[in-house]
Amino acid sequence: MPGLLGIEGLERPAIEAILHRAAFFQSREDHKDFLRGRMVVNLFFEASTRTRTSFEIAAKRLGADAISITASGSSVSKGESLVDTLNTLGAMRPDAIVMRHAASGAPHFLARYLPTPIVNAGDGTHEHPTQALLDARTILDRRPSLEGLKVAIIGDIAHSRVARSNVYLLSKFGARVVLGGPAPLLPREFTDLAPGVDLTYDIREAIRDADVIMMLRVQLERQHEASFPAGEYFHFYGLRLEHMELAKPDAIVMHPGPINRGREIASEVADSQRSVILNQVENGVAVRMAVLEGILKN
Amino acid sequence: MPGLLGIEGLERPAIEAILHRAAFFQSREDHKDFLRGRMVVNLFFEASTRTRTSFEIAAKRLGADAISITASGSSVSKGESLVDTLNTLGAMRPDAIVMRHAASGAPHFLARYLPTPIVNAGDGTHEHPTQALLDARTILDRRPSLEGLKVAIIGDIAHSRVARSNVYLLSKFGARVVLGGPAPLLPREFTDLAPGVDLTYDIREAIRDADVIMMLRVQLERQHEASFPAGEYFHFYGLRLEHMELAKPDAIVMHPGPINRGREIASEVADSQRSVILNQVENGVAVRMAVLEGILKN
Amino acid sequence: MPGLLGIEGLERPAIEAILHRAAFFQSREDHKDFLRGRMVVNLFFEASTRTRTSFEIAAKRLGADAISITASGSSVSKGESLVDTLNTLGAMRPDAIVMRHAASGAPHFLARYLPTPIVNAGDGTHEHPTQALLDARTILDRRPSLEGLKVAIIGDIAHSRVARSNVYLLSKFGARVVLGGPAPLLPREFTDLAPGVDLTYDIREAIRDADVIMMLRVQLERQHEASFPAGEYFHFYGLRLEHMELAKPDAIVMHPGPINRGREIASEVADSQRSVILNQVENGVAVRMAVLEGILKN
Repeated sequence: MPGLLGIEGLERPAIEAILHRAAFFQSREDHKDFLRGRMVVNLFFEASTRTRTSFEIAAKRLGADAISITASGSSVSKGESLVDTLNTLGAMRPDAIVMRHAASGAPHFLARYLPTPIVNAGDGTHEHPTQALLDARTILDRRPSLEGLKVAIIGDIAHSRVARSNVYLLSKFGARVVLGGPAPLLPREFTDLAPGVDLTYDIREAIRDADVIMMLRVQLERQHEASFPAGEYFHFYGLRLEHMELAKPDAIVMHPGPINRGREIASEVADSQRSVILNQVENGVAVRMAVLEGILKN
Repeated sequence: MPGLLGIEGLERPAIEAILHRAAFFQSREDHKDFLRGRMVVNLFFEASTRTRTSFEIAAKRLGADAISITASGSSVSKGESLVDTLNTLGAMRPDAIVMRHAASGAPHFLARYLPTPIVNAGDGTHEHPTQALLDARTILDRRPSLEGLKVAIIGDIAHSRVARSNVYLLSKFGARVVLGGPAPLLPREFTDLAPGVDLTYDIREAIRDADVIMMLRVQLERQHEASFPAGEYFHFYGLRLEHMELAKPDAIVMHPGPINRGREIASEVADSQRSVILNQVENGVAVRMAVLEGILKN
Repeated sequence: MPGLLGIEGLERPAIEAILHRAAFFQSREDHKDFLRGRMVVNLFFEASTRTRTSFEIAAKRLGADAISITASGSSVSKGESLVDTLNTLGAMRPDAIVMRHAASGAPHFLARYLPTPIVNAGDGTHEHPTQALLDARTILDRRPSLEGLKVAIIGDIAHSRVARSNVYLLSKFGARVVLGGPAPLLPREFTDLAPGVDLTYDIREAIRDADVIMMLRVQLERQHEASFPAGEYFHFYGLRLEHMELAKPDAIVMHPGPINRGREIASEVADSQRSVILNQVENGVAVRMAVLEGILKN
């Protein structure tokens, strides 16, 4: 595998191989010899404890070394260009660079210049491929296949790389995706991303008969953009226990985290038997092990 | 061992086992196979280079992987609750979480919710169990037993988790503890913590015939609370060479560090033969190796 | 090797041994058993992603553990003295401490007090020995010897530890060094540092017949000191394609990075076949492996 930039360009067999291998890594056996002597650099221009830690644990579980660099205090602040920063790190000959950047398309742009394989750990509002993979792994732990499932994704769709990567992946496997959210955060163009995608401004419609309800985080950091008071947002688009009756009896609730309790999801739902939020986190390590192994073992 | 939250709840045999094992780890032999494949997450909500580094070195000496997370830049700043942060990290299946937090009782509260073993690396003004263990290890390197020793602990007792953990430990082993400091920083309730604890506002009385003089750091960060000008504090409660004549001839001087020279301790004392401050640091690694091994090896 | 404080005090055979060993480490074979169980602490009081990462990768390639500490958030901010900070870290028994500090001479001062070997990763405007070593390695990958080469070093000579370490090293091996830059940044005393050093305010004179052109970074951080507007500096002292005709036909262009494109070097030159800037970065890891091995293997 030459790297992992996004789900959009991945073929089904490549996705299936990762998901299959991730299932193997769900066991906690010792895999420290798998990638002995290999080196992964985590380069995060946006802070993310959860994703960075997950990649770091994944690398170390496989016996690889992991070095984490955050933008603050890095040479970026010294005015170096992004290409030069990456080229410099690449010259130190890591086996892969995992990067998160606020600019959509940054890893794709860099991959054209760099010989080092790049793993996209989130680029702006574009893609977050390992999130979609761990979401798929989590669904498949409970369903035999994605084919024909109804998946509701609810929240700030417009700015969500999680939504986008999930739309690409789920559509490739024949799932039906219903995107729900307030009109300003739900661009009509999303139906063009992939086949089988519908939009609705009504959370109840999105959830009705859903197999999977995927809630997106309200980006408190972007509060100025979405001028919804917390209470009002929760009233219209927050997931509450009462909604669960609309979904399939064995529907599961997902969230990429970190969750805002009482904002986009009620505590009663987040902590319920339906919630697989912590399973997602756990699968995140397994999926990233599979991705890193696929890239580094050759 | 299910974790290490404090000294208060530990039985003597458990403490003795750690101290005995720590003596074994004082040698610098290669123990890289002891905890191969195990993973420790250091989660520090308060900055502490010394303690975090000590835990990280301890883990790595045993061949375990260590991942350090500091609160700044973590998901904490994204408004996630403490329980959710810990649950998320726990879902990545580390073998232990070492945590420091400004809230007294935070690790005890979390341990009730989390399956992951927690090591308390300092919680508010409550406990700092590995500090008391390394202090005991350091005393026992020079004395056959703690029984009957007089230990003077001097400084801001009220806010000191170091004092509290030491009071619990020393009292369990029959040492006599005299707490010394200015009245506003020396609450009468400390005599109720454990048997054999006395208070005095007179540093000379505390030190007289002491086997061990343990100086506490003046928390410059908390200067607004204690309105003692530096010079005045040193005059009344700073440890100077002249005080050493009051103590036992072979008395030792301890300090949890980092020291403020000329504030709570004179340089002549800190750098004297009596000072075992650097031995404490060295024993810190050995004690933490023993604690991590006790938790992770099973 | 007892540590590495600077090039000035190193004998030729010691330098040759490092450069020879670094050539061995240019291969990407697995050397994870070389320093198994050894521990390196990287203590950076000045931010530097590139140098810190290079040392960390070097240590890990050899199987040693590396722990990185940056000044912000360290006990330094708690008012501890530099000697106490280093003594404390030393008491945790790392096998070496790699340190960068803004004060010239800081590592030399500390080495007198500490038993732990110290590697100077840059001290103020004084020395940056591993930079000079990697520069020499990079030149020697393209020339049979340093003897008789003309090396032009251009920029803010006065504040450059890179220039100083290179002057010491190149002079020891019989290279001729011409220092070029604006008068306020080019102190006459530099000719006294070592034999075979000349000064010029004319970049063309420095470059004429040069085998090596080493450009220094304009320290944007120190802009208040050097009151050269960006455009004016580039006009007089920036390296452009037209200058390359003055140098030897096979002259190489070097830069310690990070580069300021259009400030001290034109993009056409930085990206040309003559540029060995990324080779320098790559050799940085190999040279630091040789240095760490020399210190830790005994």
